[in-house]
Amino acid sequence: MSARVLIVDDLFPNVKLLETKLGLEYFDTLAAMNGPDAIAICEKGLCDLVLLDVMMPGMDGFEVCRRLKNNPVTAHIPVVMVTALDQPSDRLKGLDAGADDFLTKPVDDTALFTRVRSLVRLKAVTDELRQRALASRAIGMGDPLVTAAAETGLDAQILLVEDRPGAADRMAGALSQHHRVTVEADPLTAIQVAAEGEFDLALISLDLSGHDGLRLCSQLRSLDRTRGMPLIMIAEAHDRARIVRGLDFGVHDYLMRPVDRNELLARARTQVRRKRFSDVLRGAMQASMQMAVTDGLTGLHNRRYLDNHLGMLFSEEGMRHRPMAALILDIDRFKAINDTYGHEAGDDVLRAFADRVRQHTRPIDIVARYGGEEIVVVLPDAGLAEAHAIAERIRERIQAAPFAVQRATRDLPVTVSIGVAVRCADDASPGDMLRRADEGLYEAKAGGRNRVVAQAA
Amino acid sequence: MSARVLIVDDLFPNVKLLETKLGLEYFDTLAAMNGPDAIAICEKGLCDLVLLDVMMPGMDGFEVCRRLKNNPVTAHIPVVMVTALDQPSDRLKGLDAGADDFLTKPVDDTALFTRVRSLVRLKAVTDELRQRALASRAIGMGDPLVTAAAETGLDAQILLVEDRPGAADRMAGALSQHHRVTVEADPLTAIQVAAEGEFDLALISLDLSGHDGLRLCSQLRSLDRTRGMPLIMIAEAHDRARIVRGLDFGVHDYLMRPVDRNELLARARTQVRRKRFSDVLRGAMQASMQMAVTDGLTGLHNRRYLDNHLGMLFSEEGMRHRPMAALILDIDRFKAINDTYGHEAGDDVLRAFADRVRQHTRPIDIVARYGGEEIVVVLPDAGLAEAHAIAERIRERIQAAPFAVQRATRDLPVTVSIGVAVRCADDASPGDMLRRADEGLYEAKAGGRNRVVAQAA
Ligand SMILES: [Mg+2]
Ligand SMILES: [Mg+2]
Repeated sequence: MSARVLIVDDLFPNVKLLETKLGLEYFDTLAAMNGPDAIAICEKGLCDLVLLDVMMPGMDGFEVCRRLKNNPVTAHIPVVMVTALDQPSDRLKGLDAGADDFLTKPVDDTALFTRVRSLVRLKAVTDELRQRALASRAIGMGDPLVTAAAETGLDAQILLVEDRPGAADRMAGALSQHHRVTVEADPLTAIQVAAEGEFDLALISLDLSGHDGLRLCSQLRSLDRTRGMPLIMIAEAHDRARIVRGLDFGVHDYLMRPVDRNELLARARTQVRRKRFSDVLRGAMQASMQMAVTDGLTGLHNRRYLDNHLGMLFSEEGMRHRPMAALILDIDRFKAINDTYGHEAGDDVLRAFADRVRQHTRPIDIVARYGGEEIVVVLPDAGLAEAHAIAERIRERIQAAPFAVQRATRDLPVTVSIGVAVRCADDASPGDMLRRADEGLYEAKAGGRNRVVAQAA
Repeated sequence: MSARVLIVDDLFPNVKLLETKLGLEYFDTLAAMNGPDAIAICEKGLCDLVLLDVMMPGMDGFEVCRRLKNNPVTAHIPVVMVTALDQPSDRLKGLDAGADDFLTKPVDDTALFTRVRSLVRLKAVTDELRQRALASRAIGMGDPLVTAAAETGLDAQILLVEDRPGAADRMAGALSQHHRVTVEADPLTAIQVAAEGEFDLALISLDLSGHDGLRLCSQLRSLDRTRGMPLIMIAEAHDRARIVRGLDFGVHDYLMRPVDRNELLARARTQVRRKRFSDVLRGAMQASMQMAVTDGLTGLHNRRYLDNHLGMLFSEEGMRHRPMAALILDIDRFKAINDTYGHEAGDDVLRAFADRVRQHTRPIDIVARYGGEEIVVVLPDAGLAEAHAIAERIRERIQAAPFAVQRATRDLPVTVSIGVAVRCADDASPGDMLRRADEGLYEAKAGGRNRVVAQAA
């Protein structure tokens, strides 16, 4: 995937060198000579990845990285720290600041390009999700990016596939400080365990006896149930070629043996944060779609949902000739409740009304708020007699106990009138059935309320 | 990106050969020996890409491809046709059936892996979008996949970057049959034109004089405004290496010179369909989010939106000390309209009421349906006197002309009562301001309706 790479370094020759290297590989580049400029470019959304020098006057690379990773606007941008130092403590400081990887100067070209390509590809997949989240914020639906960026990456469910008992114990021990760890030595069992569990991360040894660990990675990346799970390879120094191959097909990161305990914890945490970032955005999208078909006050389906579903039940072959009934329920003298006890009491009654109706219907029935104080219930496969009986039971349950309002300091008696109708062979649309139910409701009201009137076709 | 590749061939040795090759590259494989089996596997969502033999007894490869591409459930799966024939007419038949590419037996390994990787990566990016669309269908929000799969790929806006006049004329001529074509010879101007336009596809010559066309591709893939636009490279036979590089960083397809007119049309169409598939899904997501904050009947914002935005206006620093006013508008004797003329007449009145309110407010005001026959208007930066004047003007406009109902066969006089309040320094939440507006509304009703009452704090 082509991408815009931001090179951050206080020395001009360093910037030039990386620009030239990346340019030859068809990456677009931008440059910043200090931390604040780099942050500004990232905040404007002008780059896809940051190559970040550690030693800079003023704000150093660690601080730049921390700020980028803690800002909802920039948290999704991969950061690779580049430095002349090769102190484990510096690597760790970078990873702890949230860096996605760490390269040592002079930078090895293959390592650089492999890592940049891998991070850019992974980002391309979540960018779509992020775009939807931004759109959701733009139309006033709250801001999932803030929640997503605040994710700590701790307390995760981790799968460790490792058949060397000593190594497995050491790694599981370290990870168990912050996470729940499942160790699995057999790769075939591991696939099954991964597919059946809800893991936030898997660590895979490339040196399983008698099995290519990289193939296990490839299978986990291919299976529907596991392809969203980040993978970290655990490799020996001689495994370079397989590491490159793995990163190329979508493995997220790797650790070299002997595995440094702190580096293990830092890299695991980065991957868990990444996964949960996507999970939060996905959850927010799902919630916003759910909201579009849900009534905010009662939590019932709304009229939009009812119209969609009734349309489907009337048009789909196979559904078209099955019986169906509809109830329209309307709280008696609801306006008087609102006028006398206030809107909030009215809302309490509506919520409790919805709950009682739901308790006396089946999961396959559709229960939707139709308008102000009206609920429609659609009963698939029910005839007129059955629908009438259900309506009568609901009417009784509403009347049976008063409704608590004003923080349960007052009880109001409430009754409901219900119109009932069934689908007829010559109904052209769901509207015909609902119109008959509405006529039944009108008669129930006219007949003195608190009653059920079934309307034959 | 790792992936599951479905190999479809009626000859077992052919299947085995491809399985082995792909397995060594860490792809997962599945096999089908005939068309119907292949379609069943695709419909179950078990594969990411299909390598499809043309000559098979029973259903041939062309027919399999056509069925996959016309089925909303499978239309997104890339199909590469593989055949012993190298007749241009067969290539064309495959492309016309919707195939993403065509490989000739014996299959060249580099060509195979490059193409499979490129298609799988492009698919990974749209998969996220498709998952959201499936979720949207599951909760009863309609099915964008059906619309997306029905896209024809015609009548597109195409950018052709080519500086050889003869070639440009020939290609533009062919494309103009079905599309609108913009020809641009200069690559720098081309970037600008692409960024400012709304192109469905760009075709880029790799042999521009004095410029590397591949760099132009990379830039178009990097820029925010153009990265969603499919790219097709136009290359000479000696350009193999750059073609592979381009596919690797995200260029979608390529054409070899001399460009075959029909192949040009077929490949252009496939890319336009692919882009529009994503556009339709993105549009559907956007629409469903929009729905979540929109009142279905009036098209106004709903209460959920109002609550979100008021919360923001009260909590954000900088917003906190600016004046703000709210109106609550309630149609007088609305229940009587419903009871006398029916729900549909009531709905007509609500829609027209909403329209008139919108016409007398500014775009920066928030207008939301608050409940049954109530609308809330929030006026940023307005004081009590100004808000009162706006309310008075709305009240007059409602009263000034009757409302048409029952398909404009009847005119009903309608009036509205309005409560007005402004934010006070010690308001803890938007609810305080709305409560005062509601008290104003109550007084307006009690005072005889069709009037505005402003409630000082
Ligand atoms: Mg430095
Ligand atoms: Mg054959």
